[in-house]
Amino acid sequence: MISDAVKKLLLKNEDTFLIPDEKVAHVMNTNPLNHALLVLTKVGYTRIPVLNIEGKIVGLIGLADIVPTMFDLADIQPDNIAELLVEDVMVKEVKTVCQPYDIEYILHLLVDDPFLPVVDSHNKFTGIVTRKEILKAVNQMAHTIENDYQIMPLAAIKVASQ
Amino acid sequence: MISDAVKKLLLKNEDTFLIPDEKVAHVMNTNPLNHALLVLTKVGYTRIPVLNIEGKIVGLIGLADIVPTMFDLADIQPDNIAELLVEDVMVKEVKTVCQPYDIEYILHLLVDDPFLPVVDSHNKFTGIVTRKEILKAVNQMAHTIENDYQIMPLAAIKVASQ
Repeated sequence: MISDAVKKLLLKNEDTFLIPDEKVAHVMNTNPLNHALLVLTKVGYTRIPVLNIEGKIVGLIGLADIVPTMFDLADIQPDNIAELLVEDVMVKEVKTVCQPYDIEYILHLLVDDPFLPVVDSHNKFTGIVTRKEILKAVNQMAHTIENDYQIMPLAAIKVASQ
Repeated sequence: MISDAVKKLLLKNEDTFLIPDEKVAHVMNTNPLNHALLVLTKVGYTRIPVLNIEGKIVGLIGLADIVPTMFDLADIQPDNIAELLVEDVMVKEVKTVCQPYDIEYILHLLVDDPFLPVVDSHNKFTGIVTRKEILKAVNQMAHTIENDYQIMPLAAIKVASQ
């Protein structure tokens, strides 16, 4: 369990947590891998979501998943990926979160993942929550907690009450 | 200014903040770009540090910096990078931090950068501090703050003292 005061302050800006789907670059699972390579080259993110035709998230893909398949030992063979689809190389294990946010769970997952896809009750992709946005909320919390709360060391309270 | 209690608790695990240089994949500024491409393909990080012969950090490089230089419009031409060095495409603006850590500054910088190179007093690269490690410390802080501190809403204190 995390501190209630910390939780409340972190969630104060929860409206800013979601980067909505229309602002998140993505590809479709049936796109040619060459298309994903072009998109990833332009957006500069490590990985982006892979959606199926129903708008559900089915994977993640990044340059690090594509470039290795272009190599024959140490030579780059672009033709190696000519026949492949996004779904052939995407990472299929994706942890998702939904609203209302469980900030404790989000903090826990973001230790290992740079962003988390957010899905609605029909499991459709609605956007992402990123380490960047959560770190902004942590900053804000650390700066403002003493505006709303008095924080006293328990040791000092014990001494005072003796 | 951030809360003293939050700062203290975040710094409680500061020994774990540094991922030391020997554990951080890096390339040299004078390495052929093909070498960086191979290294990046293996490590799977977005960007890694670029060091010069003196062990100083002179840039960052990632697949997103290399792959675009391989493209002629939509065709991949691996030969495009055959003559290039790491320093030809690396990102040269690098914000660094040093010890003892200024946690407020680190939290601020990590909003925009996924990791920060740590340098010593001679400006030599000694390792990195990552969003991942700081998020671990935030988790720990949020879970343990009420073991050491009493957090009272100021509004409640005002009412009680009336």
